[in-house]
Amino acid sequence: MHVIAERLIDDGVLEREFTLGEIPGVLWTPPSASASAPAPVILLGHPGGLNGMYPRLAGRARQCAANGFAAATIELPGSGDRPRSVDAEQARADLRRAVAAGEPVDGEIVDRLVLPLVEKAVPEWRTTLDALLSLPEIGGPVGYSGGVIAIGVRLALVEPRIAAAGLFAGSFVPRATFDEARQVTIPLHVLLQWDDEGNDRQMALDLFDAFGSEEKTLHANMGGHTGVPRFAGDDAARFFVRHLR
Amino acid sequence: MHVIAERLIDDGVLEREFTLGEIPGVLWTPPSASASAPAPVILLGHPGGLNGMYPRLAGRARQCAANGFAAATIELPGSGDRPRSVDAEQARADLRRAVAAGEPVDGEIVDRLVLPLVEKAVPEWRTTLDALLSLPEIGGPVGYSGGVIAIGVRLALVEPRIAAAGLFAGSFVPRATFDEARQVTIPLHVLLQWDDEGNDRQMALDLFDAFGSEEKTLHANMGGHTGVPRFAGDDAARFFVRHLR
Repeated sequence: MHVIAERLIDDGVLEREFTLGEIPGVLWTPPSASASAPAPVILLGHPGGLNGMYPRLAGRARQCAANGFAAATIELPGSGDRPRSVDAEQARADLRRAVAAGEPVDGEIVDRLVLPLVEKAVPEWRTTLDALLSLPEIGGPVGYSGGVIAIGVRLALVEPRIAAAGLFAGSFVPRATFDEARQVTIPLHVLLQWDDEGNDRQMALDLFDAFGSEEKTLHANMGGHTGVPRFAGDDAARFFVRHLR
Repeated sequence: MHVIAERLIDDGVLEREFTLGEIPGVLWTPPSASASAPAPVILLGHPGGLNGMYPRLAGRARQCAANGFAAATIELPGSGDRPRSVDAEQARADLRRAVAAGEPVDGEIVDRLVLPLVEKAVPEWRTTLDALLSLPEIGGPVGYSGGVIAIGVRLALVEPRIAAAGLFAGSFVPRATFDEARQVTIPLHVLLQWDDEGNDRQMALDLFDAFGSEEKTLHANMGGHTGVPRFAGDDAARFFVRHLR
């Protein structure tokens, strides 16, 4: 982990831009984090494109910091300044064409778009976690928060350091993710925007039903993909306070 | 409203048992409530049988009081010590028989059981509200919290003093209630127990979808009818803090 820039933002939160090999990322730590009191860390998932997502990610990170948590995110494979994948770009174009034509989105397109992304992104997140946890001011437990939901599901399944996940049901779900969901057992908080234009509501409900976790909560709110109400963000923050403190 | 007993319970909360005509009820007021600072009031819905429900109702009332709210409840028509309705008892027996036999519950049975209850209970709740709001220590705004959901929907529709409702999707829903739900516009917080043995999950989701309210939130949690997690109660309490303060 190579820090390329750092600055203090609101409320004494330290923001560090870093690279991990070729992957750019951002780490936010609360002023309370120290070697003698390492902070739990929440991995902030997103749909790709760190620069465009920065304002929302920084807002979520500030909320984490207010609860004493560090937060970190990395760019997704094929997004931002990272090299594009020809296959993923083709799948994305096919998906956009289907959505624009009002056709049902074929599961095969979703598989082509999302499964390779999961395969590439999950090891990167785990390597990032190794690097984060090697910092003296970062400790466990670890949370995962946000989308892409198939990445969150895979991480919840394979990464034992993740103790709780807040998942955003706002992206397309490969069929294989349902099988993985059945094996997930950590506490889950699932956010669903009821009128999300880019999401299949019934599929989101089916995925929630599939999760094997004893504690799983679904919070559904009105509005589209980016219309998550502030109080829903506060509820998600309290979920992590319950499980990471 | 005739007070027949009063006592202080935890944290200075005043509990008054009362009768309103032949209807028994209970009123809880926080120590902060006074003529110069009247408390908002939350009507506590329940499935009937005040004595058996008392511990849970008193717990909900204490939580209301902790947020500065009064809480009140009345016995349902045909429950507790109130006269039974022959038709309702017959409908209840028919429903129990269908459930025990594993048959789908006919909408006609639900209509026979719930619609007369709504017709009788809603005017009683409104009369109770008149009496409550005539007390100097009780003011507006008013919330409705709990089941029977068809009663909550009707009250949300016809009683303009109710500013927000927290509904428990744990009871059978007459078909007519869906039409009423479409006309409801106040903020709603709907609680759904995902594995509620006495409830049709899809019907609960359809009812949530039907509500006309711009702000409506669904919180689904694992477990059966009486297994609402403590944190879900806390979330519902915060909903009322947002809307009644």
